[in-house]
Amino acid sequence: MTMTASHTAASRPFRIAPSILSADFARLGEEVDNVLAAGADIVHFDVMDNHYVPNLTIGPMVCKALRNHGVTAPIDVHLMVKPVDQLIVDFIDAGASIITFHPEASDHIDRSLQLIRDGGCQAGLVFNPATPLSYLDYVMDKLDMVLLMSVNPGFGGQAFIPQTLDKLRDTRARLDASGYDIRLEVDGGVKVENIAEVAAAGADTFVAGSAIFKAKNANDPHAYDSVIKQMREALAQGS
Amino acid sequence: MTMTASHTAASRPFRIAPSILSADFARLGEEVDNVLAAGADIVHFDVMDNHYVPNLTIGPMVCKALRNHGVTAPIDVHLMVKPVDQLIVDFIDAGASIITFHPEASDHIDRSLQLIRDGGCQAGLVFNPATPLSYLDYVMDKLDMVLLMSVNPGFGGQAFIPQTLDKLRDTRARLDASGYDIRLEVDGGVKVENIAEVAAAGADTFVAGSAIFKAKNANDPHAYDSVIKQMREALAQGS
Amino acid sequence: MTMTASHTAASRPFRIAPSILSADFARLGEEVDNVLAAGADIVHFDVMDNHYVPNLTIGPMVCKALRNHGVTAPIDVHLMVKPVDQLIVDFIDAGASIITFHPEASDHIDRSLQLIRDGGCQAGLVFNPATPLSYLDYVMDKLDMVLLMSVNPGFGGQAFIPQTLDKLRDTRARLDASGYDIRLEVDGGVKVENIAEVAAAGADTFVAGSAIFKAKNANDPHAYDSVIKQMREALAQGS
Amino acid sequence: MTMTASHTAASRPFRIAPSILSADFARLGEEVDNVLAAGADIVHFDVMDNHYVPNLTIGPMVCKALRNHGVTAPIDVHLMVKPVDQLIVDFIDAGASIITFHPEASDHIDRSLQLIRDGGCQAGLVFNPATPLSYLDYVMDKLDMVLLMSVNPGFGGQAFIPQTLDKLRDTRARLDASGYDIRLEVDGGVKVENIAEVAAAGADTFVAGSAIFKAKNANDPHAYDSVIKQMREALAQGS
Amino acid sequence: MTMTASHTAASRPFRIAPSILSADFARLGEEVDNVLAAGADIVHFDVMDNHYVPNLTIGPMVCKALRNHGVTAPIDVHLMVKPVDQLIVDFIDAGASIITFHPEASDHIDRSLQLIRDGGCQAGLVFNPATPLSYLDYVMDKLDMVLLMSVNPGFGGQAFIPQTLDKLRDTRARLDASGYDIRLEVDGGVKVENIAEVAAAGADTFVAGSAIFKAKNANDPHAYDSVIKQMREALAQGS
Amino acid sequence: MTMTASHTAASRPFRIAPSILSADFARLGEEVDNVLAAGADIVHFDVMDNHYVPNLTIGPMVCKALRNHGVTAPIDVHLMVKPVDQLIVDFIDAGASIITFHPEASDHIDRSLQLIRDGGCQAGLVFNPATPLSYLDYVMDKLDMVLLMSVNPGFGGQAFIPQTLDKLRDTRARLDASGYDIRLEVDGGVKVENIAEVAAAGADTFVAGSAIFKAKNANDPHAYDSVIKQMREALAQGS
Repeated sequence: MTMTASHTAASRPFRIAPSILSADFARLGEEVDNVLAAGADIVHFDVMDNHYVPNLTIGPMVCKALRNHGVTAPIDVHLMVKPVDQLIVDFIDAGASIITFHPEASDHIDRSLQLIRDGGCQAGLVFNPATPLSYLDYVMDKLDMVLLMSVNPGFGGQAFIPQTLDKLRDTRARLDASGYDIRLEVDGGVKVENIAEVAAAGADTFVAGSAIFKAKNANDPHAYDSVIKQMREALAQGS
Repeated sequence: MTMTASHTAASRPFRIAPSILSADFARLGEEVDNVLAAGADIVHFDVMDNHYVPNLTIGPMVCKALRNHGVTAPIDVHLMVKPVDQLIVDFIDAGASIITFHPEASDHIDRSLQLIRDGGCQAGLVFNPATPLSYLDYVMDKLDMVLLMSVNPGFGGQAFIPQTLDKLRDTRARLDASGYDIRLEVDGGVKVENIAEVAAAGADTFVAGSAIFKAKNANDPHAYDSVIKQMREALAQGS
Repeated sequence: MTMTASHTAASRPFRIAPSILSADFARLGEEVDNVLAAGADIVHFDVMDNHYVPNLTIGPMVCKALRNHGVTAPIDVHLMVKPVDQLIVDFIDAGASIITFHPEASDHIDRSLQLIRDGGCQAGLVFNPATPLSYLDYVMDKLDMVLLMSVNPGFGGQAFIPQTLDKLRDTRARLDASGYDIRLEVDGGVKVENIAEVAAAGADTFVAGSAIFKAKNANDPHAYDSVIKQMREALAQGS
Repeated sequence: MTMTASHTAASRPFRIAPSILSADFARLGEEVDNVLAAGADIVHFDVMDNHYVPNLTIGPMVCKALRNHGVTAPIDVHLMVKPVDQLIVDFIDAGASIITFHPEASDHIDRSLQLIRDGGCQAGLVFNPATPLSYLDYVMDKLDMVLLMSVNPGFGGQAFIPQTLDKLRDTRARLDASGYDIRLEVDGGVKVENIAEVAAAGADTFVAGSAIFKAKNANDPHAYDSVIKQMREALAQGS
Repeated sequence: MTMTASHTAASRPFRIAPSILSADFARLGEEVDNVLAAGADIVHFDVMDNHYVPNLTIGPMVCKALRNHGVTAPIDVHLMVKPVDQLIVDFIDAGASIITFHPEASDHIDRSLQLIRDGGCQAGLVFNPATPLSYLDYVMDKLDMVLLMSVNPGFGGQAFIPQTLDKLRDTRARLDASGYDIRLEVDGGVKVENIAEVAAAGADTFVAGSAIFKAKNANDPHAYDSVIKQMREALAQGS
Repeated sequence: MTMTASHTAASRPFRIAPSILSADFARLGEEVDNVLAAGADIVHFDVMDNHYVPNLTIGPMVCKALRNHGVTAPIDVHLMVKPVDQLIVDFIDAGASIITFHPEASDHIDRSLQLIRDGGCQAGLVFNPATPLSYLDYVMDKLDMVLLMSVNPGFGGQAFIPQTLDKLRDTRARLDASGYDIRLEVDGGVKVENIAEVAAAGADTFVAGSAIFKAKNANDPHAYDSVIKQMREALAQGS
């Protein structure tokens, strides 16, 4: 297989993806508008069903409301649900751009990935901190993104798990070797202080929730801008 | 047991409960403010987990956001989830006022009802259209509300099931006979045209979603007021 | 509601429904042709999924094959499966005439009944020997058939449970009082010796498996005819 | 059906059934010997599987160890598990005398009851505080015992639920009317202070755990005798 | 371990295994007789339970009927069910020759494989398109067959997934290196046009459903023979 | 990472861990006292929930009873349950020293491991005979023990699976390479005759149930001592 330069990590621009779980749900459209205006690249949308993880968050109707509100940025839907196929269909209809799910949550992983792409979305797999990478072995051609969890999804108050750095390096090596154009996203405990190190380990897409939205409580109207700008600077210096 | 007059249906004021599932989730705080300003009594909050019903809607974080936004009206949480106990605890923490669940969704109904009251909320059971009323037999002393579904929860585009009128009459008779002060709510296909008939059958609390929120699309800034006002007039004439 | 004479048990002709679980699956079309030619009224089709009952039998493809083979008699599908909604849709597509399911196997009984009728089939509920009749309370208008199990479904080698006779009488009384035209079927241990007593208790449709198909092993080419004829005679004398 | 005098509540001697969940598991044989020597009639054995209730206790091996130890009194096994059939078989093999289960925990209640009796044990159904009595409707001929829970099983620190008294009266009326010889047991919060009232409501068998075993911590070597004796006196005075 | 020549792919004769899911269930015995007469080697029998895959097909009774009908060829049962152990026992009793199951569908894979062999059948594991091969690591000594799915089981209308060719090569290498005599079967989208390529990648047993049975609709009475003959010719030329 | 000598297998003393499943549950405290007096190092405690394995054994209350009885040796709790998180918390409270669980039984393996350590216990993963070792890939820093099953847990009467020796060698190599101080335990069919071979393959902790406790039936009051002594001699000679 011929590798083209466009598929190496270096040439893939970094993306910052604020998780709206940390936004104010009473005025979600405005929050999303603001964070995008502040320089965020994509909207990260965390779906929990109280079965795969011990929490229930937001579903397809909220995604659709963002589209109706005028959001045109990519919406990156992370399904922390089991099973996945019906919600994949529902989120395609609700305007999702990217849909990722956990391989343990689908009896038919290959089929679920195909379902996402058949619906015009980008498809990805999410790996819990302990989940082995062997689920990648025979579906590389059906992936647009791999998401590594650097905390355990669905539980609050966790710090970035250091072991994730090794896993990012392993994943990056596999993605580069595959020759496919696949993004490597990381979610959990990413902030200004560690984003450069995370990028150096191979990530190109960074989910950040409270790191970004907590800044909004300050009086500074440009708080969002400030955090996202600092992240970009850290990335620029680190890489 | 001595029955006091205050516990009869006649003396219990009607309540209109807009379901926020039909609201605009991009500006939910504003929507709720508007509908309350237009005369709604309580906020009806539909929680679906994609297991008990085939849809996933909104969870405790959204409830909490409404409280943080300043909503002080009662929030009436209808759990269409299975199991129920963890989400009961989460919604108590999130500021719910009333929590209802389906008896088929809890292995320990009595315990779940106690859990709600122990958390300072009002407790209720929800009956699907075909669910027999025998679940009421030994928990009447632990109920603040009974909710009868007049459509099948979780499925779209349904009309009011006429059989519900008989079931409302049966339920009303049982509630009055019990001597307890228990509200009788109905949810599904209630609108200006049939609300008086539904009230005549025994309901005192009326959930209405699209009937109220669809009016918002009109140019009339007083559309909400108008629908709720018509409902109140129908109730006044009908009773 | 006005009761018409056509809705009383007396005027509803008896139906004999051989269960094809006792037929030879290597030549099922021929077996069904023979049993219908011998005077059977409808084909009883037992579907088990190894979850609701501890056995797995036959699915929609086999039903469709019977239609393609030329069977035009009513096919009466008894779903011993959980959940039920997807298989309801599949059996409608496969040519079923009647579809019955167990109320414990559907979270949304009213909806499942509507799904069957919306698909152009007749709908029914099945009651295990110990299941209370309260599931009938609010769906009488959506039923075309009630099936009482006189053995426990999915387990072999059982005799007719005598308690079923009381339950048949209770059910018959409720069906007659409802004014709706609803058949009352019984399944399990029905044979020439007890069919008249079962009919006297209120049943009008009789499932029989081994009682009919075991006769085929004899050398008598008219064995089917003989058993079904004896059942009809017993019914004629008994009623 | 002819009622014989031996089937009335009055003629059925009271039984006290200490729950070994409150005993010392490090010397269980000795504890059971002592409590039987102190006048207990049967050994109550609570089985929890961490699925039907949120706790895991003891299984068939422990029952068998008591038999091997020399316990000859009836062992009354209360299954708080789901599903039930395999454990029914295991407890028959382990020497159980009575086996009761929750109707919600078996898809095939009639079959599970038959399985118990076929194994030479007495069979019973257990009702949670909110469970309606309609599960009794068509299995009265297969019951040797009905157990009413007066607390929610599997949760600690609960007091006797007063609503149980009404339910005991309703159940007693049904059992007497049936003409069958069926015991009525109650479990949860029963103690010297309320046992007479519970008996007056219709119970004839009384589970008591901490009420009896907590007495053992005292220095009084006759503590067990004392509590059980007080219970018997309360029963004698109350009836 | 010493490798004997008899365990290399080259010396293992190709086998064609028509899937009876594409046969006419109204005259299944005749269909199976015909396809075997036309040169098929083994009968492939697809079992779906509507839980592991979204369809319900045929169970042990149908397998037994084929044996009673006189089929003596190996019957190769592919269990698309979860859990597997009870159906393994049932299919052993029903006359199965080979039983394969999905590793994700058994909590105790090693035990399920032993259960099959203890029943006198050959045992195998089935890999969904995305399932990693690591499930092979410690059970090679208990396998008689490995089945790679080249479509997602339980879903209709799919084409051969090209990624399967790499997976066949990987699997073949592992099987050869093990020194055990293990067949490598492939199922999904195999036809005359691609069978040689699939064999070149390492498969020695080929499931084909519609490719073979659809030919029966033609007027040509030798249609089966023709397709199977073409497959054999392609295999002969390709290898 | 620098490897210290203390982390090699050679320097880690062997531990013998009698499984109390084979003890007499009627006098468990005494049995545990005796086996520890006879030289056992730790108490192995097998928890089964009748869901992850087909048996139900003993839960947290029994563990707590041993602590109250005065047992101070490490209690090594092997959870054969699914899900695991609640029972992890319960066993921490009940005085467990080591808690191990099966990776297939937790949706959030990393989180469950952290939960154990946060509770002050040592944490481990258990591998069924067929479970691949890839679950070790990214949690090595959170493990204190790895337990390899050399029989299938929950099923009786099995012999040591020879394939386990290879798996022990593979695991030992990974643990040594990691530089972490992680014990390697083996459970199933270990006895005097094979313990040296098992140790040679890399195990340092040996569960033995019937091998040790069956000796108690002999008249020899030093039977326990004898078996454990023989095991130690075999280990000393073998290593």
